[in-house]
Amino acid sequence: MARGRFITLEGIEGAGKSTVAAQLCERLRSRGVAVHATREPGGTPLAERIRALVLDRGDESIAPEAEVLLMFAARRLHVDNLIRPALERGEWVLCDRFTDATRAYQGAGRGVASGLIESLAQAVHADVEPDLTLFLDVPVALGLSRAAARRGTTDRFETEGHAFFERVRSRYLEIARETRVVRIDATEPLAAVVSAAIAAVESRWPT
Amino acid sequence: MARGRFITLEGIEGAGKSTVAAQLCERLRSRGVAVHATREPGGTPLAERIRALVLDRGDESIAPEAEVLLMFAARRLHVDNLIRPALERGEWVLCDRFTDATRAYQGAGRGVASGLIESLAQAVHADVEPDLTLFLDVPVALGLSRAAARRGTTDRFETEGHAFFERVRSRYLEIARETRVVRIDATEPLAAVVSAAIAAVESRWPT
Repeated sequence: MARGRFITLEGIEGAGKSTVAAQLCERLRSRGVAVHATREPGGTPLAERIRALVLDRGDESIAPEAEVLLMFAARRLHVDNLIRPALERGEWVLCDRFTDATRAYQGAGRGVASGLIESLAQAVHADVEPDLTLFLDVPVALGLSRAAARRGTTDRFETEGHAFFERVRSRYLEIARETRVVRIDATEPLAAVVSAAIAAVESRWPT
Repeated sequence: MARGRFITLEGIEGAGKSTVAAQLCERLRSRGVAVHATREPGGTPLAERIRALVLDRGDESIAPEAEVLLMFAARRLHVDNLIRPALERGEWVLCDRFTDATRAYQGAGRGVASGLIESLAQAVHADVEPDLTLFLDVPVALGLSRAAARRGTTDRFETEGHAFFERVRSRYLEIARETRVVRIDATEPLAAVVSAAIAAVESRWPT
């Protein structure tokens, strides 16, 4: 049986990842593809506990390196207990954020050394890399204003300032030079963004 | 102000670490030393949440590498939010387990590459290493029979077999060759073990 495809969605807040994921998932299912829609950090019961620990703002500070370790611990659980088994069964996995988010948020955003991040990526998921990454690109001001309009509360990341998200977006733009990544202009209306995402997937893997 | 001393206690289950820690702490306090008695994984609210996640046996499997990442994430929180600030205030820290336990349990016990463990130790606590490590050494059969007599329930580690703990003890014996480590014969009655631990500390730092 052919291994399934592993597609990741990346972008700053307000880029439209959730909507695109839902619509893309529906489209793939209508083609008869078995798809798991999942997210990081999270995706398994223990990884979701790690997510809660990282995202819930509490009194205790979390050093950027500790944040990276928690992200990769959650990722290993996710890869071992959901992603790899699904791919091996021939199913597709559509994941909202993966290691590119660690590179952008903890690496560029918080200044964690890329050597640490890359060596952990190697230790944690050497055999599982995205086949395709859709980077939904939106200018920071637009993304943040969309995100603010949508949510009432803020988590540990959403309270970061504009400069933080500029660093995150810049790193995403660098990563977008890799051939596995397709940059999609997410300033367009959501319907157009969804169409572009579907086109990117279907041009790579025609029905 | 002089930096405080950082003392760690290591050994397999049933070696008597808890009793030794309590008695040593009391002795140091009677000398007027401010001491924090703490443990790993844990020691801060978030690190204790990580401890619960690692130790509570659930249905979801945790790969050894994920376990190592969780241990070091908890350790970074512990070092940043309790150990380093205490040492800098001139207070002493007495910690039940530290990175030697990761080397012994996850490294020798579960087979995680020592390169990963040492690079994480460097990334997580390059500036905070134990001044003294007391290794309470007990043969595996004796340690396990003591531990079994003491507890009603078993956690993710206590259910491991004899061979696992033999590998753990062997690594501890290797580590005990380092000059910062004092090996204490923990087959002796607890009162004698406590006396040996106090003697090791007081010979290094006389009153």
